[in-house]
Amino acid sequence: MIRFGVIGAGRIGKVHAKTIAQNPKAALAYIADVNAKAAGDLAGLHGAKVASVDEIMRAKDVDAVLIGSPTGFHAEQIQAASSAGKAIMCEKPVSLEVKTIHETLKVVEKNKSTLMIGFNRRFDPSFAELEARIRKGAVGDVEIVTVISRDPAPPPAEYVKGSGGLFRDMMIHDFDMARFLMAEEFVVVQALGAALVDHAIGEAGDVDTAAVQMQTATGRIAVITNSRRATYGYDQRMEVHGSRGMLSARNVHNTTVELHNGQGTQADPIQNFFLERYAQAYANELNSFIAAVESGNRDPRPNGVDGLKAQMLADAATESWKSGKPVKVG
Amino acid sequence: MIRFGVIGAGRIGKVHAKTIAQNPKAALAYIADVNAKAAGDLAGLHGAKVASVDEIMRAKDVDAVLIGSPTGFHAEQIQAASSAGKAIMCEKPVSLEVKTIHETLKVVEKNKSTLMIGFNRRFDPSFAELEARIRKGAVGDVEIVTVISRDPAPPPAEYVKGSGGLFRDMMIHDFDMARFLMAEEFVVVQALGAALVDHAIGEAGDVDTAAVQMQTATGRIAVITNSRRATYGYDQRMEVHGSRGMLSARNVHNTTVELHNGQGTQADPIQNFFLERYAQAYANELNSFIAAVESGNRDPRPNGVDGLKAQMLADAATESWKSGKPVKVG
Amino acid sequence: MIRFGVIGAGRIGKVHAKTIAQNPKAALAYIADVNAKAAGDLAGLHGAKVASVDEIMRAKDVDAVLIGSPTGFHAEQIQAASSAGKAIMCEKPVSLEVKTIHETLKVVEKNKSTLMIGFNRRFDPSFAELEARIRKGAVGDVEIVTVISRDPAPPPAEYVKGSGGLFRDMMIHDFDMARFLMAEEFVVVQALGAALVDHAIGEAGDVDTAAVQMQTATGRIAVITNSRRATYGYDQRMEVHGSRGMLSARNVHNTTVELHNGQGTQADPIQNFFLERYAQAYANELNSFIAAVESGNRDPRPNGVDGLKAQMLADAATESWKSGKPVKVG
Amino acid sequence: MIRFGVIGAGRIGKVHAKTIAQNPKAALAYIADVNAKAAGDLAGLHGAKVASVDEIMRAKDVDAVLIGSPTGFHAEQIQAASSAGKAIMCEKPVSLEVKTIHETLKVVEKNKSTLMIGFNRRFDPSFAELEARIRKGAVGDVEIVTVISRDPAPPPAEYVKGSGGLFRDMMIHDFDMARFLMAEEFVVVQALGAALVDHAIGEAGDVDTAAVQMQTATGRIAVITNSRRATYGYDQRMEVHGSRGMLSARNVHNTTVELHNGQGTQADPIQNFFLERYAQAYANELNSFIAAVESGNRDPRPNGVDGLKAQMLADAATESWKSGKPVKVG
Repeated sequence: MIRFGVIGAGRIGKVHAKTIAQNPKAALAYIADVNAKAAGDLAGLHGAKVASVDEIMRAKDVDAVLIGSPTGFHAEQIQAASSAGKAIMCEKPVSLEVKTIHETLKVVEKNKSTLMIGFNRRFDPSFAELEARIRKGAVGDVEIVTVISRDPAPPPAEYVKGSGGLFRDMMIHDFDMARFLMAEEFVVVQALGAALVDHAIGEAGDVDTAAVQMQTATGRIAVITNSRRATYGYDQRMEVHGSRGMLSARNVHNTTVELHNGQGTQADPIQNFFLERYAQAYANELNSFIAAVESGNRDPRPNGVDGLKAQMLADAATESWKSGKPVKVG
Repeated sequence: MIRFGVIGAGRIGKVHAKTIAQNPKAALAYIADVNAKAAGDLAGLHGAKVASVDEIMRAKDVDAVLIGSPTGFHAEQIQAASSAGKAIMCEKPVSLEVKTIHETLKVVEKNKSTLMIGFNRRFDPSFAELEARIRKGAVGDVEIVTVISRDPAPPPAEYVKGSGGLFRDMMIHDFDMARFLMAEEFVVVQALGAALVDHAIGEAGDVDTAAVQMQTATGRIAVITNSRRATYGYDQRMEVHGSRGMLSARNVHNTTVELHNGQGTQADPIQNFFLERYAQAYANELNSFIAAVESGNRDPRPNGVDGLKAQMLADAATESWKSGKPVKVG
Repeated sequence: MIRFGVIGAGRIGKVHAKTIAQNPKAALAYIADVNAKAAGDLAGLHGAKVASVDEIMRAKDVDAVLIGSPTGFHAEQIQAASSAGKAIMCEKPVSLEVKTIHETLKVVEKNKSTLMIGFNRRFDPSFAELEARIRKGAVGDVEIVTVISRDPAPPPAEYVKGSGGLFRDMMIHDFDMARFLMAEEFVVVQALGAALVDHAIGEAGDVDTAAVQMQTATGRIAVITNSRRATYGYDQRMEVHGSRGMLSARNVHNTTVELHNGQGTQADPIQNFFLERYAQAYANELNSFIAAVESGNRDPRPNGVDGLKAQMLADAATESWKSGKPVKVG
Repeated sequence: MIRFGVIGAGRIGKVHAKTIAQNPKAALAYIADVNAKAAGDLAGLHGAKVASVDEIMRAKDVDAVLIGSPTGFHAEQIQAASSAGKAIMCEKPVSLEVKTIHETLKVVEKNKSTLMIGFNRRFDPSFAELEARIRKGAVGDVEIVTVISRDPAPPPAEYVKGSGGLFRDMMIHDFDMARFLMAEEFVVVQALGAALVDHAIGEAGDVDTAAVQMQTATGRIAVITNSRRATYGYDQRMEVHGSRGMLSARNVHNTTVELHNGQGTQADPIQNFFLERYAQAYANELNSFIAAVESGNRDPRPNGVDGLKAQMLADAATESWKSGKPVKVG
């Protein structure tokens, strides 16, 4: 039984608290949040106690810390938890600053802490199956990875300002998936972007529509497109083309019901957003983290280096978009 | 080059005339129809000549007669063409009377004529492929055949009166397909029917909605459902369940375009009626007939016995519907 | 919070115990089973206590009894729980004897007990959505209901002997779904069956492959086919054809991954059996029962009459199969 | 009736000759080819006469010239046909040299000739429908166009040498489709490429795997990926994401047959190459050209400027791939 302290009682903290509460191998011990009411409500819902971040770090009955606080706190909380001897599962990104990530990973390494980064999509049953089959050789040598990722609706421009921008805030998940599926590092990044959905996002210095193409040293190619708004729901698709075949993973519809009439055949809408679409992924992610902690595996995947590499691609894409030039990585 | 005389310049005659005109191994020599204008127009369209039925039968430059006249003329025209030494392709059914079919097949046999019956669905690329794979063992032993067949819109009640009824006029195609896929004769037929679409059809003594289940001597089962009206187009589906798997053939959509929005994913309508849905089937059917004539094969499939057997199932279903009791066949 | 006593620690008892344990509005208080080890293991897994059936009936801290015992005990346990003032959720069927069902429902009625029968498929998200849309008029007047239901693998012939036969043991779910979707009672039943999968099932006096067609007083038709073995998994499909359109619900695949190569496009297998396929249905079923208990609704659906009606159709189908004749119902 | 002279009796010449022969509004008068046997065989097959290119240009009984000769001859033959007063349908590209295209279009303009370029994919029923719906506003403002295009098997490296390279030889079709769907010119092009399929192609100075992303002046984005080899057939897909929805067009399978067994659900292979996949597109293309000629429309689409613009994008992509830098266009 792994006893968790959860930092953050916001949207993502709630997801993790619920996932922990439902996992027979996990216990939800403490919730910390600067918003005392949010912490109290969430703790009450799952029979946990409210505590401060420091109290969680010091608590004897906490084996693992799940960090779901705002991005700006991730690095210091990872370091604190690592120094306190806790296993750590941290939401992406470790930091918006590559330098800070390096420093954080050094602390983790020194303390020999178990650290896993919350790239939840790796644990989606379909995407996990897709990757597993690639590794078994189902498509031979991977040649082209295609990732299409669109959110149902754009965030407020206000949010965008503090987010690090689309490439670091949204596409970072797709950078991680491209690395995960390709299993070879990218060495060059080309980005295009525009604010087509919401002018306020453009005025805030960001884009809401973007495309990135990247290449590895051996010439393999990945293509990612993002939009902050898809009227048809949360569009999450991937495909991998290789020398022996192609593997694809489609969207997940709410039900299998289809209506047939004069207009054609209408399938149900796709699952609208990440809480539904990735509910199983969050559960599987937690299982994977628990298995690592229980077995003493200090290097579960995705690890801190995965967090670092995705951030470097996001930085490169941001730079490429701004400069209009390709950017070399690594 | 097989030279054809086509009898009938109505809807189905036009289909065959066009199919013959486009086939590089076929020549459209003559068109006959009691409606002189219809015959003239169709002949003019394809560069053929107008002739009477008798003239076609006597014509030296006619190798094959394609009979697309009203059902009541089929038997005598088959007999006449057979006696005249022509190869014969005749639309279903040979006759609404089993006795007349027997007499006609005797003439065909005596003259050693090539006779093929126009069960066009056997030549649909998907259904033909489905059957070919069954014969190769893709599903092992066939256990359940399911045929769903619905027309886009009901015919006028006036038409229904002279049609022989739904089981003989519409479901006869499905009886043929069930026999084709099962490859074993059915020995018992149970039918249900109702006039749910158009009360006038019920008043005319017929049904527009029907279900039939049949069983072979070894226990295998076929299930057929029909409706005279499907708002979503011409519904033509089959599946075959066996000891090693299941083969299905879905409907054909107009295009592969799909629209994704808040209502869901909308595929294009399915092909609306038999002229579009079975255009390729008619072409393949003609090729099969031509190949038989050229190679001297006097028994192409579906043959006269196939016409007879389907008619017997249609008669049995009609009787079962009327009596409310299962009917034994054969 | 509804406190449950679960009777039966077998396959279905485990499903319900787990579902109750995960439901935030339910508490799993007691497990009863003649097999003390099975009861103990299941209770231990979920932190519940072991008790006898009698103890559960008398327990003050039990609000509801979930009956997952062998069929032969259902009726007496419903009556005992009803007399003890408990709410009751009972697995199908109430009894294999219509007379016993009538007696049991009288007791339930007298005691004004809340009784729900475990036709779990009504709560499958896709089938529930399909039914909800029918009721909203999406297909207009229902004309044909088609249910295809096939198990992945046949049970041992030994099981079959005590099961009441395929129509009562397996197809009873489909009878319930046909009633649920049609919303009008069937008045005539025609059945065909054979032992094509396993000769031992035939020698045990049962069938493993069957088709039933039924009709309502207004002429509407339902068609059900069953097989005890589908090599491709647990085949659970429905479609409803009406005056304004057609609604269908397809199978659920394990993932959305598709492999494309020279053999074609290969979708993942479908979910193999009821534990996976209906996991969400069991959870929704429990929610529906809890909502009924909490709101004092003494007549949740499916209720005892639904259990009775399905059993009457199963009896009629069994008789029709044995006699080779249509059987009238009601 | 439009009378055609076809120049070129190779693979594409055969496609056009057959398409013309089957079109009721077209007559195939002459075939020219430096290979006299090829010309003779093709002419014989369709009852046409063999002629030299000059004879076709001078022939009184030729209304239109269809140019399917090697790329190097296109420009001069367009000019000759234009000067001879013929309508012209020319396979892509007009020339590998933008300058030559300009010169050729001047001649066409001066002579007021009807010129159509053979970007056949615009006439594919699914892609044409997709574009028509965009123009009707089905997706609102277009934001991202995605084109995936892969050939079943790579050409010989020897062919590649004289082809102008993948971007000009293969991706040019996708540049045209991106322009067709976007309906706004692209101003910047970024390309990546590698020889992953066949090293000999790399040694010949070309790539067989490539990605291009492009942007319009208003920020809209198109993404194209190409491979010279897809084990699963001729992969031809497009999708258009806009402010109100997304339209996609999937691949076309040989039949609708699906096999279901323990491995999953296997759909039929997709149509393998352009002769099958675009048979209907070639027929529709010809109809469109004939309609233009008959109506005196001297500017059918795609016209010479479309040929020029696609060539400019192909040149830009080639330069971008070689330089590793974005290239501005127009």
